[in-house]
Amino acid sequence: MRALWYDAGKVVMIDQRLLPNTFKLVNFTKCSEVAASIKDMTVRGAPAIGVAAAYGMLLATKEGTNIDDAARMLKATRPTAHDLFFAVDSMRESIRSGRDPEEAARSYVDLIVEKCRKIGEYGEPLIRDGANVMTHCNAGALATVDYGTALAPIRVAWNKGKKMFVYVSETRPRLQGMKLTAYELLNEGIPHAIITDGASGHFMRKGVDIIIVGADRIAANGDFANKIGTYEKAVLAKELGIPFYTAAPTPTFDFSIEDGTKIPIEDRAEDEVTMMDGHRIAPEGCRALNPAFDVTPNKYVTGIITEIGVIKPNEVGKVRRMLQ
Amino acid sequence: MRALWYDAGKVVMIDQRLLPNTFKLVNFTKCSEVAASIKDMTVRGAPAIGVAAAYGMLLATKEGTNIDDAARMLKATRPTAHDLFFAVDSMRESIRSGRDPEEAARSYVDLIVEKCRKIGEYGEPLIRDGANVMTHCNAGALATVDYGTALAPIRVAWNKGKKMFVYVSETRPRLQGMKLTAYELLNEGIPHAIITDGASGHFMRKGVDIIIVGADRIAANGDFANKIGTYEKAVLAKELGIPFYTAAPTPTFDFSIEDGTKIPIEDRAEDEVTMMDGHRIAPEGCRALNPAFDVTPNKYVTGIITEIGVIKPNEVGKVRRMLQ
Repeated sequence: MRALWYDAGKVVMIDQRLLPNTFKLVNFTKCSEVAASIKDMTVRGAPAIGVAAAYGMLLATKEGTNIDDAARMLKATRPTAHDLFFAVDSMRESIRSGRDPEEAARSYVDLIVEKCRKIGEYGEPLIRDGANVMTHCNAGALATVDYGTALAPIRVAWNKGKKMFVYVSETRPRLQGMKLTAYELLNEGIPHAIITDGASGHFMRKGVDIIIVGADRIAANGDFANKIGTYEKAVLAKELGIPFYTAAPTPTFDFSIEDGTKIPIEDRAEDEVTMMDGHRIAPEGCRALNPAFDVTPNKYVTGIITEIGVIKPNEVGKVRRMLQ
Repeated sequence: MRALWYDAGKVVMIDQRLLPNTFKLVNFTKCSEVAASIKDMTVRGAPAIGVAAAYGMLLATKEGTNIDDAARMLKATRPTAHDLFFAVDSMRESIRSGRDPEEAARSYVDLIVEKCRKIGEYGEPLIRDGANVMTHCNAGALATVDYGTALAPIRVAWNKGKKMFVYVSETRPRLQGMKLTAYELLNEGIPHAIITDGASGHFMRKGVDIIIVGADRIAANGDFANKIGTYEKAVLAKELGIPFYTAAPTPTFDFSIEDGTKIPIEDRAEDEVTMMDGHRIAPEGCRALNPAFDVTPNKYVTGIITEIGVIKPNEVGKVRRMLQ
C-alpha cells in the first residue's frame, strides 16, 4: 500500500495525522480538498506533497476548475517544499500540451516512486554492516508515496542483510520521527530506538556512523531546507566527523535560487508546540515560536543522495545540466 | 515563597511535576519520603535536590534513623547532580560534630540562596541591554530554592531595567523549559518564547547574544553535566561564536573527578519519552532511550558563573583552593 493513490475519480490517502494509533483512509474528489489536506498535513513530506498536488491538478481537470486557479490554490498551501511547485508546474505543462491528465499524474507518481527506489540503491553502499544510523523526522514511505528518501538506503541495506541500529529523533513538535519513522521501522523489523531531539548530540558523540535525512528544498549551491532540527544535527556531525547526507529526488532541487537564504521557511501555529492531543501543555499565557524548517548550509553536507547518484553539494549544477 | 522549606518538623515542597496547571504543596516528615520525592522528581534541579537532601538528613535525626543509613538512602536517589552528595556529606559532618541539625540545615539552605543571589550579581553584566538570551531546562528559582542559577543573571538584568528576550527550549522529555522556566518568566513579566529543542540552532543562527544554562555536576577540568540537550547548544554556540555560560554554586563542583567522562549519567524510564500525561504517544512496541543528562566538554564553555565570580573552565582548581 502506498501513502496515497488515485482510484476512479478519487484521491485516497492515509491520514498521517492519526498514525500510528488510528489507520484511516480519506477520499477527496475536489482539488480544494486536496489543497486543504496538504495544508493541514493529512499528507506531508516533500515528495508526497508533490504527488498530492499532481493529483490535485488532475481533479481540477475532472471538475472543470481552471488549471491556473488550481495551480495557485495548491501552491498557496505550504511554502517550503519544492516538490509541490515542481509537480504543479509539470502537471500544468502536461495538461496544456494536451497530454491526458490522468496519464500525466500516474506518470509523475511512478517516476517519484522509481526515483526513491534508485535513491535506496545509490545510498545503500554508504551504510556499513553493523552501522549506527541516525535520521530525523519522517523521510520514509509515508513521506514519499513509497520506499522513502532517507529511509530508502536503510531499507535496501537491511534487505541485503546488513545489520544496523537506527536512532530516530522524535521531531517535535509533531513527532513525525516517533509516530511515523519508528512505526515504519517497527513494521519492517529494523532495530531502532526513539530519542528526544536534544539527545541526538549525546548519541552522536557515543557513536553514530552516518546521518541521513530528507530535504524539502535544495538550493543551487547545495544548501537545503529540511524539518526543524536538521541544522543542529549537521553542525554536530561536522564537529564529530560523522558523514551527513540528505536524500532527495531531483524535484526537490530548486535551481532558481542561488542559496539557502532564499528558501521561504514556513512558520506554523504555536499550538503545535503548546498543545498536545487537544490539551494545553504550556503555561497559559506563554507564547511559542514554531518554524517548521531550518536551512543547513552546504559546508555541513557530505553528500546528496539522488536518483542519479550521490553528489557533492557543489555538484548541483551538474545535476541541472544532466536533467536538461 | 521558596520551592521548598522546613516548618515545625515537616519538609514542605511545591510538587513540580504538576506545574504549571496545578499548584500543590506536599509535606514530608520522614527521610524516606524526601528520598522518594527526589527520585520521582517532585523536587528537581541540582541545588534544590541538595536542599531537599539536607532536609532529609534533618528528618532522619528527628525520627532516629541512623545518619549513615539516611545518607546512603538519599545518595541512591539520583546519580548525576553533585549537590546531592555535597549536601548529604556536609549535613553528616555537621551532625557528627554535634551541631544542631535544624540549624545546620537552615544554614545550608541560606547559603545556597545567597550563592544564587551572588550568581545573579556576577552574571548580570554579561547580559547587554536588548539581548537575545537562550536557556535550557529550568535553572530558575524552582530548581534552586530561590533566585535560580541560569535565571538569576536574567532576573537581575531585568530588574536593573535591561530589555531582553529569552528563548526557552522546551526540554523534552519532561518539558521543564516549557512548564517551569516559561512559567517563571511569565510570572516576572520577562519577554520570552517557548521553542522546541530542535529549533535552538535555527534561532541561534538568527541571532542569540548569550546562552546561559545550569549544571548538575562540574568536573575538575570544567567539563560539566547538565540536562540532555545542553551539549548540542554548546557545540552550536562555539560554531556560531555565541558566548556560552553555565551558572552553578560551588556545591555543584566535583573536584574529585578529573573530567566529564567520570560523571555518571542517569538513564530514566523510557515512558518519559513514549508517554505524555498518562497516554502513549509512541507506536506500541517501539522502544526509547532516555538519558537525563549529557556532558559538555570544557572547550565549549566560555565561562562558569559562580558565587565567587565568573571563571574560565580551566580555573576550577583556583575555586577549589579558594574554598579550602
